[in-house]
Amino acid sequence: LHGVNDAEGIKAVLEAGKAHDVVILGGGLIGVEITEALARKGCRVTIVEKRNQILHDLDWEMAKLVELHLESHGVKVLTNTIFEGFQGDGRIRGVQTSRGVLPADLAILALGIRPNAELARQAGLAIGPLGGVKVDSHMRTSDPDIYAAGDCVESVNFFTQQPCYEPFGSIANKQGRIVATNLCGAKDTFPATLHSVACQVFEYGVARSGLNEQTARDLGYEVTTVLAPSPDREHFVPGAKTLMLKLVVDTKSRQLLGAQAIGPGHPDKRIDVATMAIGGRMTVDQVANLDLCYAPRFSPVMDNLITAANIARNKLDGAMVGITPMELHRRIVNREDILLLDVRTHSEYEQERLSHSRHIPLGILRERMGELPKDKLIVAFCNISLRGYEAALILRAAGFADVRVLDGGLDMWPYEKLQ
Amino acid sequence: LHGVNDAEGIKAVLEAGKAHDVVILGGGLIGVEITEALARKGCRVTIVEKRNQILHDLDWEMAKLVELHLESHGVKVLTNTIFEGFQGDGRIRGVQTSRGVLPADLAILALGIRPNAELARQAGLAIGPLGGVKVDSHMRTSDPDIYAAGDCVESVNFFTQQPCYEPFGSIANKQGRIVATNLCGAKDTFPATLHSVACQVFEYGVARSGLNEQTARDLGYEVTTVLAPSPDREHFVPGAKTLMLKLVVDTKSRQLLGAQAIGPGHPDKRIDVATMAIGGRMTVDQVANLDLCYAPRFSPVMDNLITAANIARNKLDGAMVGITPMELHRRIVNREDILLLDVRTHSEYEQERLSHSRHIPLGILRERMGELPKDKLIVAFCNISLRGYEAALILRAAGFADVRVLDGGLDMWPYEKLQ
Repeated sequence: LHGVNDAEGIKAVLEAGKAHDVVILGGGLIGVEITEALARKGCRVTIVEKRNQILHDLDWEMAKLVELHLESHGVKVLTNTIFEGFQGDGRIRGVQTSRGVLPADLAILALGIRPNAELARQAGLAIGPLGGVKVDSHMRTSDPDIYAAGDCVESVNFFTQQPCYEPFGSIANKQGRIVATNLCGAKDTFPATLHSVACQVFEYGVARSGLNEQTARDLGYEVTTVLAPSPDREHFVPGAKTLMLKLVVDTKSRQLLGAQAIGPGHPDKRIDVATMAIGGRMTVDQVANLDLCYAPRFSPVMDNLITAANIARNKLDGAMVGITPMELHRRIVNREDILLLDVRTHSEYEQERLSHSRHIPLGILRERMGELPKDKLIVAFCNISLRGYEAALILRAAGFADVRVLDGGLDMWPYEKLQ
Repeated sequence: LHGVNDAEGIKAVLEAGKAHDVVILGGGLIGVEITEALARKGCRVTIVEKRNQILHDLDWEMAKLVELHLESHGVKVLTNTIFEGFQGDGRIRGVQTSRGVLPADLAILALGIRPNAELARQAGLAIGPLGGVKVDSHMRTSDPDIYAAGDCVESVNFFTQQPCYEPFGSIANKQGRIVATNLCGAKDTFPATLHSVACQVFEYGVARSGLNEQTARDLGYEVTTVLAPSPDREHFVPGAKTLMLKLVVDTKSRQLLGAQAIGPGHPDKRIDVATMAIGGRMTVDQVANLDLCYAPRFSPVMDNLITAANIARNKLDGAMVGITPMELHRRIVNREDILLLDVRTHSEYEQERLSHSRHIPLGILRERMGELPKDKLIVAFCNISLRGYEAALILRAAGFADVRVLDGGLDMWPYEKLQ
């Protein structure tokens, strides 16, 4: 979409009743945001994404939670699916993919965004490695009398100090002010970026900043990760909603490298605070004692970010040994011999359970631990893995060799639903 | 209240229908929070406060906005009022004050909180200057085998490095974890505090961190202040609500010293981010280019805090000369000769106006500026002081000697309503 006219064109097709089945090609930010708009208009929407997840700024397990949320609203999400062509006669009737033909009255291409640097190129200005106009920190191009800002320029990444591309309104507006300041003779500089991103997906907010786990590993960091689901305010306050938070921590320096949050409960707040910690190169030890403001209607008494930082410390200090949902999933698929230990109450277990799990409520674990094998990997869990953590401490103290806690617990385990 | 029993005692009186007129003695956090609880139960509540404002962690003009909000819910707020005694015969019938007798079936004393350090005193532990148990950063008392945490201990203030008293649940919980960590043989320290505080007052959230203007001046800082009202998300998003933000900036170092936010729109988020900036000794120039996450439903494209930081920069750089509501109010009361220039549209002016203001819409100011005196203090304003700022720039460029902008505009001018 290059302007309001394009959006009005789509709206006209919808209002003429000519679009019921819509295929979105590309599951990035734009694809997901337009999906919601179309689904709310009554369209049957399918997202076609060639990678193994949508929203690749998130790690895989976080993206899967968003996919499940989309599916709960009737949206079909096809990952690992290649677009092969359109079918139709003058009007589109279907979309050919590696998974067959999808019926379609309308298709929207949301395949990515590239800097429009054509004018700069014609003017002989330097272009960066990502195709955007090259600027210095003052937003000055290779011609000292020409400045550039916004979606056409390249920025610098905080971690790599290498060029990156950040086509976001928040970036463009700040850069615009810097250009104006510098043109007027004062001096202002645009800093390196953390890739802070947010979007709304039906009831879920999605926000992230810094490095995700995959990118951090690709850059050579040894990382410790945390999945921490908990209410966004005191659980007794009406309207409290679950926030699902992931932290990525540099194991060596204990610095926070990145954070991702999703859920109906104020993810943007926690990510903005995390952004400050990441940009300030703060350790999780510092984050755990941040003097954030507290009232029961605004946060738990230990804010979600503080709790997540404390989980990271427990892991870094060896008190907690976790296993990520992705890793556990891989091992289950590989038919490894793992004991899944559910330590929730009987009524919780009756409501929902993992197949092949063993159930011993935490309160009677000490009496019944003799039933468990001492030499096998035991993965303890509850809904959020607090009781799972306690169970693991009890078993490890009793000499069980390899007890781990399912990171994030059942609240962040979308895998059985995805099969 | 020393436990749930006390709260249940109050509830029993209410449910027996024996309390209609309630007087709260003390307009601090507890007094204000209990006011809301009682007003929602149908009581006629009066707050009696001896100082010239409630919630003295806020600056005066911010507290006045909260007082107006309380009054809009039928609560009577009596500041500058001294409690003199109770009237009644076995049961309370009235409260005697310096402003006369207030009818009362129930009175609640919310006069402050003192550390309960009696046990520590009896044990011979060192007590600090504020009456709390003296602890080091490891939460260890003067006896190396005894630790203390929570409302009975003194903390250290970030700015003064002097003892302070922070009886908040968020502090107590963090300190509790530190004590446990240290008892178990590991090492953790509790940092200096920023006095981050939040509470809810009907539809308003109230949050603050760092130094307020008065405290900063008392500590010898030369300060620049900002009042910045603006929507908490993009103005076109349904549910956008005004956030009223105040920043206190050290004029010399340009560092953010403190922030206060009130309003229905997510003040806690901005104060938590501000807390990070204050604790990180960031300048407003750094705050103005923070890489906060953005989507229209989460914030304006320039977040409220970023906009406020830019206003601070405009002031520090001499582009904007402001006048605080408090200062303007003082001058009006002193009958100084000031021209109040309202530059809003005709329809806005028809709806609400300041008495004795002169009205020239911004769009025709250049044509009509000849009508204005060049040698008199002109205070330009609109609703939020953006157009007021533009008007001031136009007039100053045209040679008007002393043009200032009303900080925060009419949105943060509660004074005529308070007369």
